[in-house]
Amino acid sequence: MYSKKIEEFFRKSDISVGDRIAVSSVKGEFEGLLMPRVEGEQDVLVIKLDNGYNIGIGFGDSKIKLIEKMKARKAPPKQEKTDGEVAILGCGGTIASKIEYRTGAVYPAITPEELRMTFPDIGKIAGIRSKSLFSLFSEDMNAEHWKIVADAVADEIKDGVEGAVVMHGTDTMGYTAAALSFMLQNLPIPVVLVGAQRSSDRPSSENEMNMLNAVYCAKKDIGEVGVCMHAGINDDFCHLHRGTRVRKMHSSRRDAFRSINSPPIAVVDWMHGRFEALTEYKKRSPAGSLQAKTKINDNVAMVYVHPNIKTKLIESLSGYDGVVLVGTGLGHAPSNPFNDKRVHSVLPAIKGLVDSGIPVVMSSQTISGRLCMRVYTTGRLLMEAGVIGDGADWLPETAYAKLCWVLGQTKDAKKAKELMMTNLAGEISGRSPMMEEY
Amino acid sequence: MYSKKIEEFFRKSDISVGDRIAVSSVKGEFEGLLMPRVEGEQDVLVIKLDNGYNIGIGFGDSKIKLIEKMKARKAPPKQEKTDGEVAILGCGGTIASKIEYRTGAVYPAITPEELRMTFPDIGKIAGIRSKSLFSLFSEDMNAEHWKIVADAVADEIKDGVEGAVVMHGTDTMGYTAAALSFMLQNLPIPVVLVGAQRSSDRPSSENEMNMLNAVYCAKKDIGEVGVCMHAGINDDFCHLHRGTRVRKMHSSRRDAFRSINSPPIAVVDWMHGRFEALTEYKKRSPAGSLQAKTKINDNVAMVYVHPNIKTKLIESLSGYDGVVLVGTGLGHAPSNPFNDKRVHSVLPAIKGLVDSGIPVVMSSQTISGRLCMRVYTTGRLLMEAGVIGDGADWLPETAYAKLCWVLGQTKDAKKAKELMMTNLAGEISGRSPMMEEY
Repeated sequence: MYSKKIEEFFRKSDISVGDRIAVSSVKGEFEGLLMPRVEGEQDVLVIKLDNGYNIGIGFGDSKIKLIEKMKARKAPPKQEKTDGEVAILGCGGTIASKIEYRTGAVYPAITPEELRMTFPDIGKIAGIRSKSLFSLFSEDMNAEHWKIVADAVADEIKDGVEGAVVMHGTDTMGYTAAALSFMLQNLPIPVVLVGAQRSSDRPSSENEMNMLNAVYCAKKDIGEVGVCMHAGINDDFCHLHRGTRVRKMHSSRRDAFRSINSPPIAVVDWMHGRFEALTEYKKRSPAGSLQAKTKINDNVAMVYVHPNIKTKLIESLSGYDGVVLVGTGLGHAPSNPFNDKRVHSVLPAIKGLVDSGIPVVMSSQTISGRLCMRVYTTGRLLMEAGVIGDGADWLPETAYAKLCWVLGQTKDAKKAKELMMTNLAGEISGRSPMMEEY
Repeated sequence: MYSKKIEEFFRKSDISVGDRIAVSSVKGEFEGLLMPRVEGEQDVLVIKLDNGYNIGIGFGDSKIKLIEKMKARKAPPKQEKTDGEVAILGCGGTIASKIEYRTGAVYPAITPEELRMTFPDIGKIAGIRSKSLFSLFSEDMNAEHWKIVADAVADEIKDGVEGAVVMHGTDTMGYTAAALSFMLQNLPIPVVLVGAQRSSDRPSSENEMNMLNAVYCAKKDIGEVGVCMHAGINDDFCHLHRGTRVRKMHSSRRDAFRSINSPPIAVVDWMHGRFEALTEYKKRSPAGSLQAKTKINDNVAMVYVHPNIKTKLIESLSGYDGVVLVGTGLGHAPSNPFNDKRVHSVLPAIKGLVDSGIPVVMSSQTISGRLCMRVYTTGRLLMEAGVIGDGADWLPETAYAKLCWVLGQTKDAKKAKELMMTNLAGEISGRSPMMEEY
């Protein structure tokens, strides 16, 4: 919020957040969009410059002139499709809304009318209903939010929607997609997460393409959780990724999302009616068969194994209900099988956690490839200590979301281990002929 | 070690570790190589089966027959090249030696003769000298080992070698390569790390090709630390990667090593005399100009940011001298700028570390792409809290090795920040025209 003094000035000058203004100050002359003040000094104006950066300018020093009002809204395009509706659920993120994102507003409303205005072709693909669950940067989301999304999808399924699209920030979209994959079993509809890497005031039409393709996927005969995102840096098609197999692999590129250790489910291009499967996928389960197992345990740590990792760091995890190690190579952590005096083994500390009943799950920082803890002594020692994961080809993030979910289902360590090592949603695949041997 | 009883039986039967034996036991009939017993039950024979797996068989139950002695060693091929020598330094790992790895022996000797026997063409490329520094799985290595390697390379340089090759396990080769890049400045020779993903008793000639190309690189006019590994799944060429840019991106593939956010330095194929630069690189510094700054601080933590990450985990880092966060997206961690009651911010805990004088450095779990913490509120809040890294495109592992090194050079937080943000060894690049905007 801006100070009362500024708000008063805005009211008198007919300036609102989102309007284009010119500011003359001791700092110089600036022109850009007036942003809301969500943090910090209330007497400092925040202007989004045309280069995309925000600048703060003290109000006291400044002369402010209105350049252009935020455009008045046109009437949204009409709904054309009137068969089964697709539910669009908002969690925030760049995809959410043109104007609102542009100005940085926090809780974009997403009425069906606003969605049709932002994505004019949406009504050609599906009838839509919509709901904003919350609006957060996805890095702020946690297991509580995963549960809100899962419960909301379950409610929409009860209401008979044909598909669900979840608008989501990109940073942790992979984690949420994996979590939903375990929480929502026997899905009678597709659940498609969608985001955008780039704000929609940029020339690229990325978010529109992602959104329309996501809605298109949500009408298909799919009974899985997927992520629909740009497949290349051109605006030609999207990939639908399996929720347990997808990872953000670049901080800024539009084609940042990649399927790992598995092909994407499909190539998707709504405009040309393309939905080309690249691998097998689950079809819709019969209506009424949904199993919403949304209990989840957030008291799970994820630990990156690295040179110099300290025993005390592992020991400090004794208060958690589960631990995912992001190990090296085939699933390793310093174990010192040869008793070299310079090596600091974390094996006893890991064994200590396991022995105290805390499931410890392995994954690999190589991202790609399969764990194989039988090849080298290190892996065998970790397995003997009770570390779970040998043979799995899951992503670290998927292993993490799965362990949170498993520990929401059971407190029994043996049962937890069984569940972890059972493929539930495509997160563990059989060895493929493509797989090279060790 | 095996029990005295078994050793005695071996002696009488002329069986040694490495021999091929047949074992008939209650478990069935097995044939394979006798492995050494490095751990566990001393009365259990360990046999490496032809499928690559080890099996343990109780000695008491078994009938044991010698099938084939480990082949007697032929005389090694002669040294052909007699100009400047390449120093080959052994740290262990799969690359080290054929027979020794095959049997799992722990400290492969690497005399020049043995190297020429294992890699018969090596003498055509360079005169070699060699030294085993230690022999470890690389996941067991830490900053102390980095220093041993750096000091050994510095000694070899003083002795006037033409180049250095470091035989190294693959799991943490990227970390070591990055650390050496900072520790050894103004290099008058190339320092080339090399490893193998597959044991050399497999049909693939990977380790031989990697090794020969590494030695070939070590004779070039290069003044950098590099990693020379397979570039594809065929045996056609290697890539020489910059030490600060390389990462193991697959748990088992031979072409697991990739340059990130940068092209490899060169395509390398010694057999056809190919050394094709793919980017600019430093040439050899003049003799005598080496700056070996090998002091390093191992009291640095690396923390993976994830949903549900706890404040207490960050707070527990107060005993470290530095922290590297592996954040989400453009460099984020839960910061709750919108004060959503369900969000658990780690921002105050991060600020607490910074305020107590501990440098906190950002990196991204997307692996690829650049940090840009100015785009979203989360990043700006982290920057305001003092988190270092905005604009850097370093790997998490490189940021980690660099912070260990920086904190070995200075205890001053401001100086540490300056050093971190200064490109020292290609770990931070300028924005390229290829870089997409946010």
